[in-house]
Amino acid sequence: MKRLNYLILSALLALCASCGGQSPQAQEGMMNDSILAIREQGSFLIGGSIKTQPGTYDTHQPLKPDGQTLHGDHAYVSYQIPVDARKNPLVFLHGAGQSAKTWESTPDGREGFSTLFLRRGFSTYLIDQPRRGRAGRSTVDETIKATTDDQFWFENFRMGVWPDYYDGSQFPQSAEALEQFFRQITPNTGAYDEQLIATDVAALMDKIGGGILVTHSQGGGPGWHTAIKNDMVRAIVSYEPGSGFVFPEGETPEPLQTISPFGALGATSIPLADFEKLTRFPIIIYYGDYIPDEPSDNWAMDSWRVRLQMARMFADCVNRHGGDATVVHLPEQGIKGNSHFLFAEKNNVQLADLLSAWLKEKGLD
Amino acid sequence: MKRLNYLILSALLALCASCGGQSPQAQEGMMNDSILAIREQGSFLIGGSIKTQPGTYDTHQPLKPDGQTLHGDHAYVSYQIPVDARKNPLVFLHGAGQSAKTWESTPDGREGFSTLFLRRGFSTYLIDQPRRGRAGRSTVDETIKATTDDQFWFENFRMGVWPDYYDGSQFPQSAEALEQFFRQITPNTGAYDEQLIATDVAALMDKIGGGILVTHSQGGGPGWHTAIKNDMVRAIVSYEPGSGFVFPEGETPEPLQTISPFGALGATSIPLADFEKLTRFPIIIYYGDYIPDEPSDNWAMDSWRVRLQMARMFADCVNRHGGDATVVHLPEQGIKGNSHFLFAEKNNVQLADLLSAWLKEKGLD
Repeated sequence: MKRLNYLILSALLALCASCGGQSPQAQEGMMNDSILAIREQGSFLIGGSIKTQPGTYDTHQPLKPDGQTLHGDHAYVSYQIPVDARKNPLVFLHGAGQSAKTWESTPDGREGFSTLFLRRGFSTYLIDQPRRGRAGRSTVDETIKATTDDQFWFENFRMGVWPDYYDGSQFPQSAEALEQFFRQITPNTGAYDEQLIATDVAALMDKIGGGILVTHSQGGGPGWHTAIKNDMVRAIVSYEPGSGFVFPEGETPEPLQTISPFGALGATSIPLADFEKLTRFPIIIYYGDYIPDEPSDNWAMDSWRVRLQMARMFADCVNRHGGDATVVHLPEQGIKGNSHFLFAEKNNVQLADLLSAWLKEKGLD
Repeated sequence: MKRLNYLILSALLALCASCGGQSPQAQEGMMNDSILAIREQGSFLIGGSIKTQPGTYDTHQPLKPDGQTLHGDHAYVSYQIPVDARKNPLVFLHGAGQSAKTWESTPDGREGFSTLFLRRGFSTYLIDQPRRGRAGRSTVDETIKATTDDQFWFENFRMGVWPDYYDGSQFPQSAEALEQFFRQITPNTGAYDEQLIATDVAALMDKIGGGILVTHSQGGGPGWHTAIKNDMVRAIVSYEPGSGFVFPEGETPEPLQTISPFGALGATSIPLADFEKLTRFPIIIYYGDYIPDEPSDNWAMDSWRVRLQMARMFADCVNRHGGDATVVHLPEQGIKGNSHFLFAEKNNVQLADLLSAWLKEKGLD
């Protein structure tokens, strides 16, 4: 019944849009012409802690920290609930050097996953993790260095070897798009803390009654810990987790050697009882292109080689313990040219379709 | 014709919402039940500069800064365009210690100005100023101290004298709301730079073809400079500008004395030709309650006393030069109890109605 209402509403909206006299977008695929029907949208802060300075606050010396508090280490969350929303919301957690901007408009200005999945009827919750973006207030000091490192990111994220893109790259190759991409990088405002992030995301799951967690890159690690802390995580979709893989004590592999300047890739040992919590729901992990099977003298390719390898060992371990984890290396499915930001590239609708199909297959939509 | 289509669409949406079986919100005024019809939403970075380290980038030493760039000092902008949008978008610029969160959900979880005005048919552009929030990447280093100062902010923003709220305060007085409010504070990630902010906001005006600039507090200063740099600012609505007032050379008042720990409030002298650019469009400035006419031994009240006084001198000067500037001290209109965050308090719909009426009166809607 609800689905039928949604279809009727969509038809009416499409009708109204066309009678509104708006011209169709000239560039096919650049913009979705249908109207978004939103029931509710907003933002809030979740989790965090309170730092208190000993002493007594004196209103006549308001700049003295004595007796004052600082609320910090929370996450910031913006949310949108479409008309007739599907049961499971999507909760998006960005990676290193990013904010929720990761999931919004693509570098070339098309709709990102947040709006694409909103259009597909999912409520969306976009996180700025604690000590990042709009959740900038930290309980610990931090020094931010304005270090030039764009070229490092370009290579680490497998767009190419600076200044050349890899052949067939799906990254939108205009100067404007690359500039937008560089500018969406944003620093830590306090030390990175995986457990802190997981605690805040778990608090979000409590608040919204659970959901499907979608992580990217460094967000993968806190993603697993969120599901260990909170049993309302219904699935984890992890795009290119780069670190923070967990294994049961006694089953943790040795660090994987690579020429990456980050050094060998280790894994984290956790109690078996915690690891088994990752077997309660389906997990899917996606990796893009330019990741070789054999050691490479391209540092970024070699870095991602061991990350993909570790992800496969992780998924095997989850499945060995009765779980349901899948690693998809996109080129093996004929989807080529994707960088580390696969969900924001030229074929992002194709990537969204893949995810939609998986959610449907798992009965999660 | 477009307006009629919008009305038809709204009616259809309301019909569909009710046939969807959703229960009406229990708490009147807590949530707007009507559906938001959005034509487009997204985000982008605007303005900024590029820092380049001398030397040549070497892919075999990717962590060496030599020859690398850093894109920084841009603003972050999220936008929403409703179906059948009004001509002039609203561009929102937050104040000190804030991000665009200022304009989103209120501390007690109701719709903020961004969604309220979206519902009223305005396209909205919400800014995180350069070196703040999601525009965190700066071309200069910064050290962030985790200094306890919540009680200072509480008093500076005229919620009360800690821990008591002022009698009749419009601030939503629950522990949860106050916690949300404290947590929406977020630090600078680089030195505050008024001209930098104005340059980025002016670039935004270029990109979107002009709009109505809505500023808060410290955002007032860069707001005036935006309109000096860019002639597509159609109006400025300034909520409690706290500093950065500009006057023509030779007409700049002496600093106003106050017991505020910030010291005397000065003003900035600018060339007359620049000042006259502020006479091309209407300006309205709002201040809330708890601002006395006479010196006070309450430091926050005394601080805002001179700020309101300076705002009146600024408006008089604009009008003397042929402009159209109005200062509204809300208690004089019978609207009492508002703090420095007047647009996010219990009577925020009343405040939005005031602004709507002014925009209509000026032919800006």
